[in-house]
Amino acid sequence: MKIDVERKIQSENDRLAQKNRRVFSDAGVFVVNIISSPGSGKTTLLEATLDRLAGKLPITVIEGDVSTERDMDRVRARGASGVQINTGGGCHLSAAMVGEVLGGLDLKSAEIVFIENVGNLICPSTYDLGEDVRMVLLSTTEGDDKPMKYPAIFHEASLAVINKMDLLPHLIYDLEKVEREIEVLNANCEILRLSAVTGDGMDGWIDWIMRKMAEKKRALHREAS
Amino acid sequence: MKIDVERKIQSENDRLAQKNRRVFSDAGVFVVNIISSPGSGKTTLLEATLDRLAGKLPITVIEGDVSTERDMDRVRARGASGVQINTGGGCHLSAAMVGEVLGGLDLKSAEIVFIENVGNLICPSTYDLGEDVRMVLLSTTEGDDKPMKYPAIFHEASLAVINKMDLLPHLIYDLEKVEREIEVLNANCEILRLSAVTGDGMDGWIDWIMRKMAEKKRALHREAS
Repeated sequence: MKIDVERKIQSENDRLAQKNRRVFSDAGVFVVNIISSPGSGKTTLLEATLDRLAGKLPITVIEGDVSTERDMDRVRARGASGVQINTGGGCHLSAAMVGEVLGGLDLKSAEIVFIENVGNLICPSTYDLGEDVRMVLLSTTEGDDKPMKYPAIFHEASLAVINKMDLLPHLIYDLEKVEREIEVLNANCEILRLSAVTGDGMDGWIDWIMRKMAEKKRALHREAS
Repeated sequence: MKIDVERKIQSENDRLAQKNRRVFSDAGVFVVNIISSPGSGKTTLLEATLDRLAGKLPITVIEGDVSTERDMDRVRARGASGVQINTGGGCHLSAAMVGEVLGGLDLKSAEIVFIENVGNLICPSTYDLGEDVRMVLLSTTEGDDKPMKYPAIFHEASLAVINKMDLLPHLIYDLEKVEREIEVLNANCEILRLSAVTGDGMDGWIDWIMRKMAEKKRALHREAS
């Protein structure tokens, strides 16, 4: 019975995700769903991203957390608009939760929407929110055995970012092994290394965003013409 | 409907957890359920614990992971017996999963059972497995904002261990703030600081285990007499 209910929840989620996707595309915004363990540096990466882009592009952030408004306060302070979703005990965002807040956002004025999912490397993996790309963030301090232990998110991600590269000298961490495992799980998943704290590697991440955003704009343009 | 199903799953889990608890008590073993984010150092802590205790006390480990036998291989190499549970996509161990493997374990010969839960700071929090104590492991590299963002596990835990103290000099991390937040959430939760890699603070953790194990033995003795 549990499996039937889960299947029903998933198919209802897929339906609502498509609805969100239409809303995002009608507004012409590019949407990234960011997934990681607690404390991998999702919010710190968003802060560093806003420092580079907020003056040039209007950015909206949808923050997902079990509890507190802490992450929303941090990205607002760096120039993003947006909204915090608190899930109560819920372990992932769903398309329904995202759909409920879209009406309150000025998407027409935004170019990019970042959705920071609840800190969890498992449950958010299979919930489509209507995003254009799913990104998984790893950090070097989590150890080099994670991709094969948490395979689902790597199957679904377009990009894996390895964060906290600045701490590598203090760790036993086999970077090549991690990248090899990601490639085995998903040969189409791009991989970037960076440190959101020092800024090293941030250019590659910004370039990736701009490239993917341009791809979406071209696709929308083709559809319209 | 989802909530009804969840309530039904929880009450069925509680029933099976009590069944496990009786099996553990009949065998006279002390059981710790270890919960943390992916990469906080659960397995490394178990390795360091086995290095100190495996020669003196027979220890059994139940390893929970979405995928791979990696963690079980590591603790076996340090002298533990036990079993790996792979959940497939499942984001936490349940009392049913633990109950299914108990028959295959020689609990009568064991003194301590460590259950290493699936790496997830949310979902495992509310699933009783039949353990004596629930322990939450944090690491300094995850950032100092975690207790209030993931409150459920701190409400349930008897002990919070802050790991990776050796990396503190390289981080911005307010240790006192973390400890204050844990205390606000649960004044009865003990707190320890350690580094499983350098061994600093390990004595406090070993002392805590021995103290809690002795408490259980006294309680079982009182029941029997």
